[in-house]
Amino acid sequence: MATLLDGRRLAAVIEGRLNAVVADGLAVAGRPPGLAVLRVGDDPASGVYVANKEKACRRVGIRSHGGHLAADTAAEDVLALIARLNADPTVDGILLQLPLPQGLDEGPLLAAIDPDKDADGLHTLNLGRLLKGERGPRSCTPAGVMALLRSAAVPIAGARAVVVGRSILVGKPMALMLQAADATVTVAHSRTHHLAEVTREAEILVVAAGRPRLIGAQHVKPGAVVVDVGIHRLEGRLCGDVDYETVEPLAASITPVPGGVGPMTVAMLLVNTVLAWCERHGLEHPLGDLLP
Amino acid sequence: MATLLDGRRLAAVIEGRLNAVVADGLAVAGRPPGLAVLRVGDDPASGVYVANKEKACRRVGIRSHGGHLAADTAAEDVLALIARLNADPTVDGILLQLPLPQGLDEGPLLAAIDPDKDADGLHTLNLGRLLKGERGPRSCTPAGVMALLRSAAVPIAGARAVVVGRSILVGKPMALMLQAADATVTVAHSRTHHLAEVTREAEILVVAAGRPRLIGAQHVKPGAVVVDVGIHRLEGRLCGDVDYETVEPLAASITPVPGGVGPMTVAMLLVNTVLAWCERHGLEHPLGDLLP
Repeated sequence: MATLLDGRRLAAVIEGRLNAVVADGLAVAGRPPGLAVLRVGDDPASGVYVANKEKACRRVGIRSHGGHLAADTAAEDVLALIARLNADPTVDGILLQLPLPQGLDEGPLLAAIDPDKDADGLHTLNLGRLLKGERGPRSCTPAGVMALLRSAAVPIAGARAVVVGRSILVGKPMALMLQAADATVTVAHSRTHHLAEVTREAEILVVAAGRPRLIGAQHVKPGAVVVDVGIHRLEGRLCGDVDYETVEPLAASITPVPGGVGPMTVAMLLVNTVLAWCERHGLEHPLGDLLP
Repeated sequence: MATLLDGRRLAAVIEGRLNAVVADGLAVAGRPPGLAVLRVGDDPASGVYVANKEKACRRVGIRSHGGHLAADTAAEDVLALIARLNADPTVDGILLQLPLPQGLDEGPLLAAIDPDKDADGLHTLNLGRLLKGERGPRSCTPAGVMALLRSAAVPIAGARAVVVGRSILVGKPMALMLQAADATVTVAHSRTHHLAEVTREAEILVVAAGRPRLIGAQHVKPGAVVVDVGIHRLEGRLCGDVDYETVEPLAASITPVPGGVGPMTVAMLLVNTVLAWCERHGLEHPLGDLLP
């Protein structure tokens, strides 16, 4: 039976560590870390996500600067708000919740966020920094996967890793992080031939394809570590990109869905924010192991 | 016998195309494209490279703005020159020839180059743009490899490609470009276990390991396309990272060393410069196929 890579438990551990760092630094910094979560319009799922992030902020002592704009807000008004938050010395992180309402182009808005306040780690400059191995906020979901693998002491250096999916949000930064940790990484995607042959090479298999139960037993080498980034509602139940029931018996360890990668994404958002706060105030911190 | 991927010939063809684009656009732009090649100190190899680049500029009608600074130039003086070139509307590309003399840190100098004038395509923002698939100058060596593969009509989509080496200069951008062309890409490196097993999976094998004759017959699947980015002087002769004599009989096609990837790197430097000039003056061009 596979060991469970329990993201909920690890996220709670990380929150505890962040809480201690915040409490320790408060006197020197003179203010708590601040995260601005911008929501435009009334996408109901976004409402839930934003509320979850704000609750997590409260738990670790981050002040969240909400910003809920009407769906018909003009791009220039969003830009003006981002410029204000960029200049605000009490704001360490800015997050623009996606998707945006129709008519708002996310590209220029995301590009307007100060890269050093880019809590999601998705600014073009920050992806370049990741590629170069330079310091900067890291994309939350793949950074969360790295933390999960490390917490379970999965051997990464020299391992063969396969990432299924090549999105900007997950697949591409995931491959770079595994590579930086000395894995030999293959990226598979929708145009890959003989997918099962490729994925069966993996000692570490990370699936971020966005397709429910794409990966079954025939895709997995026995003893592999399997990380499922997908989350879908299928026939009234949540499932991932991995067919958990058939894959779990084969895997050495595996993430559940929900409760695997999802909570780690939020945890790493908090990590990026607290690290930016530490940086701004010259505070030392014991969070280096959380930086892929 | 393997088909030769002749970089010298393709570079000449590309120079001819650039020459035509420059001649066509001159009247509208009112000036030729401009490339500033900065050299600091007297590294003799750099002297040869810079002279080659300036000669290539002349052949296609790019004006080269030389800049040869003494080895003891202070960083702030190099920065001041870069700032002047950034502001100069007759300069489309800036290239800082590496290596720099001891005592000059290349990081802040490279970061100071206007990303849109980054003729080498190595600015952090431009590597992020490559990752995101956004427009911008592309790293010359891997872009040159893509042009070589395309000119030989090598099927890339769906092919298994292995890149040996994970440098910022070649390996990492190479993997992203092959991936953007729909290859299934694996990056192998010094920490990879069972290298031959990994490289034998490759239908397209790009070697940029910086180790003379690392790759022999036992590393190559018969019928593979082999691209050798290395160049070394060994026992008085030039050789690459691939042991040409044993690999050539196996390969479907292969780059020679010299005359393979090297000339393509210079050609893509010219392409980046001419494209920046076209962009600045709103000129249409038929060079889209050279953009990975």
